[in-house]
Amino acid sequence: MNQEKINELKKWMADTNTDLTYISDPGHIAYFSGYKSDPHERVLALFISLNHDPFLFTPALEVEDAANSSWNYPVYGYLDSENPWEKIAQLIKKNETPTKIATEKDALTVARFDRLNHYFPASDFSANVTPIIEKLQLLKTPSEISTLMEAGNWADVALEIGFKAIQEGAKEQEILAEIEYQLKRQGIRSMSFDTLVLTGTNAASPHGNPGSTAVEKHDFVLFDLGVVYNGYCSDVTRTVAYKEPTDFQKEIYSIVLEAQLKAMDAVKPGVTAGELDEVARGVISGYGYGEYFNHRLGHGIGTTVHEYPSLVTGNDLVIEEGMCFSIEPGIYIPNQVGVRIEDCLHVTQSGCEAFTKTPKDLMIFN
Amino acid sequence: MNQEKINELKKWMADTNTDLTYISDPGHIAYFSGYKSDPHERVLALFISLNHDPFLFTPALEVEDAANSSWNYPVYGYLDSENPWEKIAQLIKKNETPTKIATEKDALTVARFDRLNHYFPASDFSANVTPIIEKLQLLKTPSEISTLMEAGNWADVALEIGFKAIQEGAKEQEILAEIEYQLKRQGIRSMSFDTLVLTGTNAASPHGNPGSTAVEKHDFVLFDLGVVYNGYCSDVTRTVAYKEPTDFQKEIYSIVLEAQLKAMDAVKPGVTAGELDEVARGVISGYGYGEYFNHRLGHGIGTTVHEYPSLVTGNDLVIEEGMCFSIEPGIYIPNQVGVRIEDCLHVTQSGCEAFTKTPKDLMIFN
Repeated sequence: MNQEKINELKKWMADTNTDLTYISDPGHIAYFSGYKSDPHERVLALFISLNHDPFLFTPALEVEDAANSSWNYPVYGYLDSENPWEKIAQLIKKNETPTKIATEKDALTVARFDRLNHYFPASDFSANVTPIIEKLQLLKTPSEISTLMEAGNWADVALEIGFKAIQEGAKEQEILAEIEYQLKRQGIRSMSFDTLVLTGTNAASPHGNPGSTAVEKHDFVLFDLGVVYNGYCSDVTRTVAYKEPTDFQKEIYSIVLEAQLKAMDAVKPGVTAGELDEVARGVISGYGYGEYFNHRLGHGIGTTVHEYPSLVTGNDLVIEEGMCFSIEPGIYIPNQVGVRIEDCLHVTQSGCEAFTKTPKDLMIFN
Repeated sequence: MNQEKINELKKWMADTNTDLTYISDPGHIAYFSGYKSDPHERVLALFISLNHDPFLFTPALEVEDAANSSWNYPVYGYLDSENPWEKIAQLIKKNETPTKIATEKDALTVARFDRLNHYFPASDFSANVTPIIEKLQLLKTPSEISTLMEAGNWADVALEIGFKAIQEGAKEQEILAEIEYQLKRQGIRSMSFDTLVLTGTNAASPHGNPGSTAVEKHDFVLFDLGVVYNGYCSDVTRTVAYKEPTDFQKEIYSIVLEAQLKAMDAVKPGVTAGELDEVARGVISGYGYGEYFNHRLGHGIGTTVHEYPSLVTGNDLVIEEGMCFSIEPGIYIPNQVGVRIEDCLHVTQSGCEAFTKTPKDLMIFN
């Protein structure tokens, strides 16, 4: 349970006369309550009241687990045969009839919004708490940063396992199976996202699907992966070569590396998110490959693998100490070559520190 | 691409004077378009027009992959630096200004609903297409059933790998790592959900978290897992024993097995979803353990692991040939014992056939 962040949220609620906040995103519920769960289509909800105790609302079969988590306030459950919205309304009305209810408009479905609305027809539902929570999560505490550092260490371990599995004829899916196997045996429960291992021209698809393609001589092999460690995510990308690559491959690699290093060098409090994107994009465009860098420079990271802020052209957000995000330029030339290099980092007083330490000079495996 | 289902949807649109349907759920997009992707926070959308060609709208970095999928209509992309909603509105307005736009209210966030709404202030957005899609997906075609059967075969393979890994001192996370490793090496890209391997009293938590608990003598070990195969999910649960269990464990097991078998026997066209739940619940309550069966009997399965219908008390939905769902009663007595037995099945003309064939008589490993 994160009482400090609950208090910060309540401060916003007091400032805006919000009586009640309904948190619906499972990641955000975990962030405030300490209870993490994927309820699928069932209802999992956290209600934070300005003047009364907060409560967690879960499917009946999770009440036991939720009560045993670090959450110190009440947990209420509902059976599959019950109407959860009616129960929620009763629980709220026991204490209050809120005048103003904030919801996570970027995480809540229209149907659920309408169902809650139905029980509180006179309440004002206009407030969107999503940007408030994004801002609460934006500046990480030292303890959060140290957990992200641990998650980063595990990503480095994962890369090392993957590099060892590279050999002629090894299939993408075999290499990724090896990585996840070794990690899960050591207690890593979930990857941050489906591990990517892409070889040869497959790496030219930024979100490709690993399959039965085998590593061949002179291939680039792209790894994009991360783990969830104590609720926090890592995310790293490295592109390495199997046997000597061509001069063209080396040229593309060195451009992406230059873009990544220059963008990391530019990270410090005061620069904007958009300016960082421009640093990397400027390098790649300068060499004439701008059209092949078809995504933003990076994204925030924390309890979810992609969170606020977005490092994208035009984003005027000013970077501050404690922000954590990825720097991941790439060049993807269809049917020819794909290179991406990515680290996630936290912003320090005068620069930044990456969560992942795997070297970035082109590695060639033989 | 599933033209037949697109046509069925368009028939509903014609009947209800709906000009345009916005499909936002990635699983539903895959169902209609054949293009499967997890866009994270980016926008992935499918627009089906009554009078014009449908189109797929993806992040720029996915356009190539989407165009190479089985989708035969246009694909449009947007860059991270662009406003996707403005582009979508332009694409729609090129052809029409829809009077009535249906959205997936159970899958669409309030924020995205509002953004689309902003560009079509005069359109009627009251229609919810979620229940229509649920009904389209409810009756599976023979080809879908044969894919679900394949996905079930892989779940049986997974259980066999897990059973082989049971030995004294083996940790839950080691056993599940072994299962996923063997499957991924053989080309299974994703599990349907995080694999559960729970031993001893951990199995008494229906949604517990596998960790470093090791298998000990007389433990029940519960496996709940599934794979995604060609876009379709499997889901199976077996509870097995390591070394001779106590009479009490055996009693609980035999009650759950009786409930599961009786419910499966009762499956045939004409019975209701609620009646099936009552068959299993009646058995368990008859032995005095009703309070420990704290979830519904089952859920639909298809392109997602939990879909419509819900086999829950009071659901009057009449079962028909071609429906596919799980039958998964369980008894969970905290700190003592947990047993669940689950198969997914398809309804035939006169009964049902399970997708998983792993035996259900209590297996005792030594």
